[in-house]
Amino acid sequence: MNISVQEMVDKFYQVLKKTGFTDERAALCARLFAEATRDGVHSHGLNRFPMFIKQMQSGNTDIHVVPKQVGNLGIIEQWDGQMGVGPLNAHFCMDRAIAIAKEHGLGCAALKNTNHWMRPGAYGLQATEADCIGICWTNTTQFMPLWGSLARKVGSNPLVIAIPREDGPVLLDMALSQFSMGRMGLHRERGEQLPVPGGYDSKGNLTRDPATVMGDGLALPIGYWKGAGLSLALDLIAALLSGGKSAYQIAQLGAEVSVSQVFIAFDMETTLAQEDRQQMVDEVIRDLQATEPIEGHTPPRYPGEGMLNKRKESMGNGIPVDPVIWEQVLEL
Amino acid sequence: MNISVQEMVDKFYQVLKKTGFTDERAALCARLFAEATRDGVHSHGLNRFPMFIKQMQSGNTDIHVVPKQVGNLGIIEQWDGQMGVGPLNAHFCMDRAIAIAKEHGLGCAALKNTNHWMRPGAYGLQATEADCIGICWTNTTQFMPLWGSLARKVGSNPLVIAIPREDGPVLLDMALSQFSMGRMGLHRERGEQLPVPGGYDSKGNLTRDPATVMGDGLALPIGYWKGAGLSLALDLIAALLSGGKSAYQIAQLGAEVSVSQVFIAFDMETTLAQEDRQQMVDEVIRDLQATEPIEGHTPPRYPGEGMLNKRKESMGNGIPVDPVIWEQVLEL
Repeated sequence: MNISVQEMVDKFYQVLKKTGFTDERAALCARLFAEATRDGVHSHGLNRFPMFIKQMQSGNTDIHVVPKQVGNLGIIEQWDGQMGVGPLNAHFCMDRAIAIAKEHGLGCAALKNTNHWMRPGAYGLQATEADCIGICWTNTTQFMPLWGSLARKVGSNPLVIAIPREDGPVLLDMALSQFSMGRMGLHRERGEQLPVPGGYDSKGNLTRDPATVMGDGLALPIGYWKGAGLSLALDLIAALLSGGKSAYQIAQLGAEVSVSQVFIAFDMETTLAQEDRQQMVDEVIRDLQATEPIEGHTPPRYPGEGMLNKRKESMGNGIPVDPVIWEQVLEL
Repeated sequence: MNISVQEMVDKFYQVLKKTGFTDERAALCARLFAEATRDGVHSHGLNRFPMFIKQMQSGNTDIHVVPKQVGNLGIIEQWDGQMGVGPLNAHFCMDRAIAIAKEHGLGCAALKNTNHWMRPGAYGLQATEADCIGICWTNTTQFMPLWGSLARKVGSNPLVIAIPREDGPVLLDMALSQFSMGRMGLHRERGEQLPVPGGYDSKGNLTRDPATVMGDGLALPIGYWKGAGLSLALDLIAALLSGGKSAYQIAQLGAEVSVSQVFIAFDMETTLAQEDRQQMVDEVIRDLQATEPIEGHTPPRYPGEGMLNKRKESMGNGIPVDPVIWEQVLEL
């Protein structure tokens, strides 16, 4: 079953309005959820929407609250998300980073006390639409072990790096776990092993079995000790710059709320001539695309290439949706 | 055989002076090489020093040339390293990033046409000594494959994140390959397999055999497709911000020269109260250090912990050195 992007935006908008969102905030939130789905990120798009609405209806989130500025350190602004709507808070702060970058070349907004931002890549794409390089990350609760132990100590801390390009941006949008829960769930449903180890069993043995990892096992950081170290470093920076909570402090809350995020934008209009930089990036991408795959493998892709292909398909044929979930949304 | 830190600095300084370095540049360069060795990074300290001097003597590098500013984009400065001395160019640019950060909270210097910076972590530590968070990275030549292919397409692009802390900084200093060549060489010498897959054999099978990877195999990016994507993103940013060469363009040169680097500093003096942030970071580190190791494993460590331990030992007992290499240095 396929739904046009516009139809999805409109439906999400209606539901958000009914939930009490103001016009402007409903429109932005609807667009973010629909664009995630359009680009193939169903887990943080359509498939998450019913749960998101339920959370908004629960009354635990003030859906009208906006970030409050708590510090101005020159090129770094500090914002308190006041536990408001995660995607709207994140979008607001990347906007601030872009605005500072447009004036000074480089800008940063650090955000504390915010909620799940849904699709991480959205805020990277937001930067590229303003012809900026965007870098952003969020911390999460403690989720993965350090090398040599089985205690959950570091977050999966999704990291986004987005680079503007005329033919479509380069978009790295990755959690620091080797596989997302969504991806592991898909493999488990199909009864397939993961292509590479995705975590530990309860005894600390590496395993490719998604059911084991998702059961009493533990997800694996990319690069073992290296990803754990990167996660820790990003966590500390997010908490330090925003004055917000670390993964450790979030874990004490018992639920993944009040996370800390960093948004950085580098304005590209002021750097190299548009032509020169376009040429450099295109050359790199052509080189990658000319790579011969290993027999039986799909051709190697640059980060964001799969997303852009999905987007093109969705724009042409509508977004393929799970009819059960779409039905749920229609009933909201 | 142990050498005191001061003796090593003095000896390096003498050799650099004899090679034609001016006082100030010889002193800085000697300190960087000696501190790398003091902190346990022999591969980019003492063990590299004879080769470094040979390169300086070859006449291919103008040892007196300093970076030339080619762009001022507000908070981002662009510098041309003019193919000068890598560690001195890098130190200069982190100094610029720190100076901008001291004025504006955040600063960035992008450097093109430079040479190998030796120990990546040095420039992160430099930032922490000025009470800044330091982030820096370099691109390299094409070195590792994308997921699904066996062609060398992305660099190992070492990434550094350093966070100031009273009891010693947190220092993430990592190449995006799962193992450095040095580490793989050690395992090979001892006839040991790597603890986790470190690369591919010539047919594209993952292998833990260091000799295979270092022979006609290929090194593996951390997290497979994820590290390859991160490497590509860092490469593009370095080339875009500096106006310098991408890994692809470096590979066309046939030697790893004229690399591009990015140096970012966030001033911490202006953010949270010193006390609050110290407490947050210490709390996170205490939590990690309280982690129970898996039976037979050494206790989990935070990034930089091993380095600080080595430093303490070196300061107390002198730096343990390979006598053959030390002899080579004495003869320079």
